[in-house]
Amino acid sequence: MSNNAALLARRERLLGKNVSTFYNDPVHLVKGEGVWVWDADGRRYLDCYNNVPHVGHCHPRVVEAIARQAATLNTHTRYLHEGILDYVERLTATFDDSLDTAILTCTGSEANDVALRMAQAVTGKTGVIATNFTYHGNTAAVSQLSIRMPPVGGYGGHVRHVPAPDGYRPLGGEGGEAFTRAWTEALNEAIEDLKKSPFGFSALIVCPYFANEGFPQLPPGFLVSAAEAVRKAGGLLICDEVQPGFGRTGSHFWGHQYAGITPDIVTMGKPMGNGHPIGGVVASTDTLNAFRKAFRYFNTFGGNPVSCAAASAVLDVLEDEKLMENARVVGEYARAGLSKLGEKHDLIGNVRGSGLFFGAELVLDRTTKEPASDIATRVINAMRERGVLMGKLGVKQNATKIRPPMPFSKDNADLMLSVLDDVLAGL
Amino acid sequence: MSNNAALLARRERLLGKNVSTFYNDPVHLVKGEGVWVWDADGRRYLDCYNNVPHVGHCHPRVVEAIARQAATLNTHTRYLHEGILDYVERLTATFDDSLDTAILTCTGSEANDVALRMAQAVTGKTGVIATNFTYHGNTAAVSQLSIRMPPVGGYGGHVRHVPAPDGYRPLGGEGGEAFTRAWTEALNEAIEDLKKSPFGFSALIVCPYFANEGFPQLPPGFLVSAAEAVRKAGGLLICDEVQPGFGRTGSHFWGHQYAGITPDIVTMGKPMGNGHPIGGVVASTDTLNAFRKAFRYFNTFGGNPVSCAAASAVLDVLEDEKLMENARVVGEYARAGLSKLGEKHDLIGNVRGSGLFFGAELVLDRTTKEPASDIATRVINAMRERGVLMGKLGVKQNATKIRPPMPFSKDNADLMLSVLDDVLAGL
Repeated sequence: MSNNAALLARRERLLGKNVSTFYNDPVHLVKGEGVWVWDADGRRYLDCYNNVPHVGHCHPRVVEAIARQAATLNTHTRYLHEGILDYVERLTATFDDSLDTAILTCTGSEANDVALRMAQAVTGKTGVIATNFTYHGNTAAVSQLSIRMPPVGGYGGHVRHVPAPDGYRPLGGEGGEAFTRAWTEALNEAIEDLKKSPFGFSALIVCPYFANEGFPQLPPGFLVSAAEAVRKAGGLLICDEVQPGFGRTGSHFWGHQYAGITPDIVTMGKPMGNGHPIGGVVASTDTLNAFRKAFRYFNTFGGNPVSCAAASAVLDVLEDEKLMENARVVGEYARAGLSKLGEKHDLIGNVRGSGLFFGAELVLDRTTKEPASDIATRVINAMRERGVLMGKLGVKQNATKIRPPMPFSKDNADLMLSVLDDVLAGL
Repeated sequence: MSNNAALLARRERLLGKNVSTFYNDPVHLVKGEGVWVWDADGRRYLDCYNNVPHVGHCHPRVVEAIARQAATLNTHTRYLHEGILDYVERLTATFDDSLDTAILTCTGSEANDVALRMAQAVTGKTGVIATNFTYHGNTAAVSQLSIRMPPVGGYGGHVRHVPAPDGYRPLGGEGGEAFTRAWTEALNEAIEDLKKSPFGFSALIVCPYFANEGFPQLPPGFLVSAAEAVRKAGGLLICDEVQPGFGRTGSHFWGHQYAGITPDIVTMGKPMGNGHPIGGVVASTDTLNAFRKAFRYFNTFGGNPVSCAAASAVLDVLEDEKLMENARVVGEYARAGLSKLGEKHDLIGNVRGSGLFFGAELVLDRTTKEPASDIATRVINAMRERGVLMGKLGVKQNATKIRPPMPFSKDNADLMLSVLDDVLAGL
């Protein structure tokens, strides 16, 4: 602890104030392997949180690919190199045929920053719609989509928000088709409002899994109506796959496939290089070329041979270790376990998710569904004390966020569940 | 060639149109080492262009640092880690005492995107001034600074441009103090114009070496007057060190030190991790905390342990191999050689630069100084044919851009000069 205090003081001096640390007692990590991480005192933690080390912390095949390519050549895309071509060919093969070209960036934020301009290039308009509890990244342009912190100089006026969908408390009070209709109506209102503005309607950008919104359980075809509304209005649909992509949902390689839609533009980041900084934008040839014609774009590090080697190794491991299938099987098992805990603990109001992105919404009362946000904070801190790392999220910040590296096993799930059982019992 | 044609077709199919390749006959690189790169046919090229592999292509110490840390732990800054603290401590030690904290990003573009918001947070204003031939990166916000391509929806109205300084053709026709006064006056006009606008004056952002503007030879203290004007107007001075930083000018570790000024915010990128994607923003504690208070900011990959290990290894090599000193000595030697070539070739109008960022401005006539832009294109293509990679830049696109990896030796300079002599003779 006193060691941590000194580290925290040094951190504030060198990195500034308000740098988040997740837990009341921050974790000082020094080592990672698979689904495990170790702190400076040699204590081991089960990682139920980190999706960036997608195929497992320090996966030897990814490390080896990075080391080999870094020792061979690392330069930019103004020279020809087969690494980026092989990777983009492989990546786009996982999509609908209409999504066949890519721009590689270094982060998901850069990818979304490009995606917004792609939609501008195609439509000639600048108005964007997002949900009111979204997060699409940290660039100046992309942070305008978030309502959490008004920028200096004010919002640009070109953003409209639709309510974050909440399947547990559906808009209009009804689930199923009524909910879908109500939400699509809210979207159409936002579209009409933008059309009347000087900005016009350019795009709807959503995480097709609504991850930050709390990964709500939605009626089948929920986004199909939204996609139709967007197309009818001449706009583009951007799916941010930073969280659900690369097989995490267990059933589909991409979140938009899970949602049953085909977007115009897809963005990705976090898990793509297992921690190596790489992101990307996938679109149709026409959409991408419209962007390349309307904007100059060059990204020095984007698509460099080392980044492409890391990203290719991630695809290799996903395939060879059948990690999407693992996500499906273990996710189902763990959700069943969580539901079972719900029989003992009234706090568990709603268990949901897909594959290895799931959790429970904690409520003070199952009838009123009053969010147990403070208790959620206590739960994740208590889990950390007992050696299990997880987070919380959602509009009410009362859902546990369980999103481990993809090699997460049934044994790992059992450990997580038994510690959670303990923690809930001890509240 | 036919191999290249197939690669180019595949590239256009997968990456889209208008992806620049530098040369008429693009280079297909497969290997790099020190100041050398090799193409797919095994042909070796002297690299006189790339500043990203700052301490040399595939430097074994950087590769080893990346491989070791990637195999140990790679995660984000919400957990405590000493790697980022050790690096930021070391990095900020190279600056004036007032510049003592940092935010790490993945690219120079992200760094400038943050820097603009830092200035907004401090001043409460959003108006920015840049030169009319600058490039500060590829995000939507930062590309608004460039006049090369008007964005869809138009410029935000918050940007003013001052003329790119040209020491060879000084503003008002006179060099020395008159030039400095004329340029500072143009800056003051832009400041006043912004102050009268709804945006107010937030910051001047410049590369202190004016790299993209053609690294002009400027009167001593040129930017000192500019810095004073900015401070007097309540604005912040942002220095973009993506190109001159990390000892490249030979005489100083940072371009702003070379220019004799202390900025409020410093941004960096390209050479920082020798090709590994890392960038950063250095500022005073107060400036950084103002940003952290006004904006939410978290960068998933920024400051991760692997990036910090790569960046630390770059500092190690710079120190141990005395590369800044090498840049000074070899740069001086090479410029003398270029000047000597000027005695034979009338095309060489002006030799300038510092350390290992230098070149010659090619002119059709030394009296009228008419830019030989097309010839410059022919020259760099002919150099490439003869195994020497360099570029061109500047307002008139007629200056050779010689900016090799820092271990560039006198022998390397001799080779470059003799090939250039040949090429110029053969025009």
